[in-house]
Amino acid sequence: MSDRLIYLPLGGAGEIGMNAYVYGYGKEGQERLIVVDLGVTFPDMDGTPGVDLILPDIAWLEEHKAQIEGIFITHAHEDHVGAIGHYWERLGAPVYARRFTANIARRKLGEHGHPESVVKVVDPYPHMIKCGPLTVSYLPISHSIPESAGLLIDSPEGRVLHSGDFKIDETPVVGDPWNAALWEEVSKDGVKALVCDSTNVFSAAPGRSEASIADPVADLMKEAKGMVVATTFASNIARLKTLATAAQKADRSVVLLGRAMRRMVEAAVEEGILTGFPSTVSPEDAQNIPRENLMLLVTGSQGERRAASAQLAQGNYMGIKLKEGDTFLFSSKTIPGNERGVIRIMNQLSELGVDVVDDAGGKYHVSGHANRPDLEQLHKIVQPQILIPMHGEHRHLREHVKLGNQGGITGIVAVNGMMIDLSGNAPTVAEYIDTGRTYLDGSVQVGALDGIVRNRIRMALNGQMVVTLIVDENDEPLGEPWVETNGLPEIGSSGAPLVEVVEEDLGQFVMRANAKTLRDDDKLEKELKSIARRTAQTEIGKKPEVMVIISRLG
Amino acid sequence: MSDRLIYLPLGGAGEIGMNAYVYGYGKEGQERLIVVDLGVTFPDMDGTPGVDLILPDIAWLEEHKAQIEGIFITHAHEDHVGAIGHYWERLGAPVYARRFTANIARRKLGEHGHPESVVKVVDPYPHMIKCGPLTVSYLPISHSIPESAGLLIDSPEGRVLHSGDFKIDETPVVGDPWNAALWEEVSKDGVKALVCDSTNVFSAAPGRSEASIADPVADLMKEAKGMVVATTFASNIARLKTLATAAQKADRSVVLLGRAMRRMVEAAVEEGILTGFPSTVSPEDAQNIPRENLMLLVTGSQGERRAASAQLAQGNYMGIKLKEGDTFLFSSKTIPGNERGVIRIMNQLSELGVDVVDDAGGKYHVSGHANRPDLEQLHKIVQPQILIPMHGEHRHLREHVKLGNQGGITGIVAVNGMMIDLSGNAPTVAEYIDTGRTYLDGSVQVGALDGIVRNRIRMALNGQMVVTLIVDENDEPLGEPWVETNGLPEIGSSGAPLVEVVEEDLGQFVMRANAKTLRDDDKLEKELKSIARRTAQTEIGKKPEVMVIISRLG
Repeated sequence: MSDRLIYLPLGGAGEIGMNAYVYGYGKEGQERLIVVDLGVTFPDMDGTPGVDLILPDIAWLEEHKAQIEGIFITHAHEDHVGAIGHYWERLGAPVYARRFTANIARRKLGEHGHPESVVKVVDPYPHMIKCGPLTVSYLPISHSIPESAGLLIDSPEGRVLHSGDFKIDETPVVGDPWNAALWEEVSKDGVKALVCDSTNVFSAAPGRSEASIADPVADLMKEAKGMVVATTFASNIARLKTLATAAQKADRSVVLLGRAMRRMVEAAVEEGILTGFPSTVSPEDAQNIPRENLMLLVTGSQGERRAASAQLAQGNYMGIKLKEGDTFLFSSKTIPGNERGVIRIMNQLSELGVDVVDDAGGKYHVSGHANRPDLEQLHKIVQPQILIPMHGEHRHLREHVKLGNQGGITGIVAVNGMMIDLSGNAPTVAEYIDTGRTYLDGSVQVGALDGIVRNRIRMALNGQMVVTLIVDENDEPLGEPWVETNGLPEIGSSGAPLVEVVEEDLGQFVMRANAKTLRDDDKLEKELKSIARRTAQTEIGKKPEVMVIISRLG
Repeated sequence: MSDRLIYLPLGGAGEIGMNAYVYGYGKEGQERLIVVDLGVTFPDMDGTPGVDLILPDIAWLEEHKAQIEGIFITHAHEDHVGAIGHYWERLGAPVYARRFTANIARRKLGEHGHPESVVKVVDPYPHMIKCGPLTVSYLPISHSIPESAGLLIDSPEGRVLHSGDFKIDETPVVGDPWNAALWEEVSKDGVKALVCDSTNVFSAAPGRSEASIADPVADLMKEAKGMVVATTFASNIARLKTLATAAQKADRSVVLLGRAMRRMVEAAVEEGILTGFPSTVSPEDAQNIPRENLMLLVTGSQGERRAASAQLAQGNYMGIKLKEGDTFLFSSKTIPGNERGVIRIMNQLSELGVDVVDDAGGKYHVSGHANRPDLEQLHKIVQPQILIPMHGEHRHLREHVKLGNQGGITGIVAVNGMMIDLSGNAPTVAEYIDTGRTYLDGSVQVGALDGIVRNRIRMALNGQMVVTLIVDENDEPLGEPWVETNGLPEIGSSGAPLVEVVEEDLGQFVMRANAKTLRDDDKLEKELKSIARRTAQTEIGKKPEVMVIISRLG
């Protein structure tokens, strides 16, 4: 059996978020493995009510724990590093990252009581990390957080370039500018596969530089009459600098609001990445500064209910109140699914008389991902034998393969769980791995398919009814069935209370039930449930979830 | 006490959807009233799980039932006519509408067993309907459904123009073209108030005509290789015609899929509004036609789970299967909040190999509402004394007032429940009416504030725990407390089943509880609930909803 080079996405391929990719080299089943990114994605009421965080299912990795040489984090966004604290113990391998990313990763490990020393800071290319038969090097690339990197992965089967999240930005304000020469250099001897960011494949115009929004933002801050509040992702350090610099030019002191905002600025200053950031004032001191001399930089650009934006919109955050004449800038894009939350805040601000400026015109925000022409540019530089789109929903991956084809490059749509064998001339699907999502629910990790969240959704849609029945030592009902409800209307079509009507029907059934039925919990439960649902359907036009509790005395 | 002219929005002002406006004239509290529109809005998992439909709260109207002269429906969109069947009986007034709208309204009344004869078909201006001291006339206006109208409402206090939903479209394909002369004529003697659509006040470019998309759509249908599927709102009759005409030009037979689609076409043909629509073929007959000669016109442009789009995306609808090489056109805009559902379908289509075309570039869809410059145009024609924005969220209403101010017109932001007195020189807030939303939940109407849906959301977020305890004739516990759960993890941090750990703690409490506590249901319930929640918090990191059922024997 000969050695093979494999690629296996466990998260991020077929979705945007929760990135987790595996590469390996060796004999089938004995490959030495590296993990690239361990991210999370965020729950929503639609599909994951009550869930705190969504993580990739790493069962396969755990089974192959002894084969893992290292975990490589490309950058410090939550969808790439967010699961490291939750999962490190189960994988146990060293974690590699560039300095700033390492700072964030260490904080996450520390929160879970893991030794921060497992995180190794690595220098970028040409520095190489040996991982058994694989060699890995960090390739600096521009994105919306400092020290983002792609990865160069060398194997006896050839070189793989993993783009990481990236954009082509020669003036990124903070962080590494796009360096075409570097990518030309690592590509010149031939690249087996380019595994490439696909997020913006449908964006037809070339991407714009972070630097392009400096003037519009500065103009806005100068022209605004009252207080200015700006929100963006806290991790977008370049944007924080753009906004803070504009504030400074407009004689506005900067106030940081929201834990993530203060943390990110702290980490970036600590690592020497954020220089020239104006000194900030505390929310308390801000009270003594005229509002036209203030700019608040706040969390909550996605409408998160507990973030600073939401609290300001509700009237007060740490003593700061917005009012008529103030301006609120969303220097951000609303991620699909978050629209309602963002719009709620916009309307609350409107009620306070605050002018809301969003990015409708594209003046105050640029994306951190490569647009279609930028992807083409990378394809041309790398000229890979195979293109494997990642970091995208199915439609993005498929379109990205098409785009590659147009440039003469063979591509393959590989979604989560598809193990691709990159050995030989053409990529083949080696195996389908059972994969999925793990929910962090309170303090417990539960499988997405365990049915727990499904049951919650059912209660939310149908309401809950509880039927209790006591059966005595002689298998005779003791009293009548008792019904309680949660999340159901009190009165139905008959005009009588729903619980009474259901109890009446259940009581009649129990009275007539024969000894055999009354002895059989399963049968009794099934009948009671069925009657309760049927009566509810007649009374209120819907069938609730029914829980039957039979208590047997003696 | 002198007579007054009032305006009272009960829905649609401070939200997009659920339109219901009231006008009245007379002595305070004795005004003769007309209702303009009775619409619905749609539930979502976020805030209204399990709810079937959201209707305005009409308690105030019911209290003033005897004063209602008539219900005027401006057009046949659900957010204007959807509640008529549910509410007609409680209001009991005649319903006025133009022919096509009346057709739809009658169907809705019929479904609820109400006499269809209550709907009166009215001719447009200069025809006038006398409603006590008010006179009402229908002013044809272009929108995305045929026979849309604004209303001219004359009172002894002057004339009010209610724009209805509108756009300025001189070539609307189906329905009335924009008629500036008409609006000039009704405005020339002075208008007291313009109550005006605000939906697109943030759209800076002038609106585009329905006719402008005919060529792009025709090109797409001609160039497509396989089957073409197009989705839009079924009520957008003009769009259906645009799409069907393009199909015809591309030698494609038209298949209508989805109940709403067939119904709307039927009603439009019945009323003679839809002429020149190509004959359609049934889904069965479509099986015998080459796919490159087919165009399916389907429901589900908003990603609705049970609509034709969703079913096709899942692989099969009425025997029709999509495959590699087919094209799916979203000739529609995704309403904020529906993104996830639409994206789900797009990805399912991508998995089938279907090319998805959406309106990213604005080529295949135009809005049915007036953009900012179009609103300005109407302001200029009408030159009202007062501008009252409607049909918008708070931010739209506020921005619309600002826009009016820029043109020298006084405006007022009036949200649901604010009764405005339009008598005299300046509008004043006469009263705040308790208003809100009513949920149709199964077959029952429940108040939004009844707590029923709130409890469902809590179960979805926190899970449900049921504690049962039997107490005997002597107020002694009979056995131990029993715990069941729904929507909660089985095993917590201790490694033992959650229910067992909670039962253990509850059992200990009950064992030690004194006779006084055991006699007191309220106290017992409170303690059991509190212990169950505390233990759950320790075990699984979240506090479930707890229902305590105490059964007392004897």
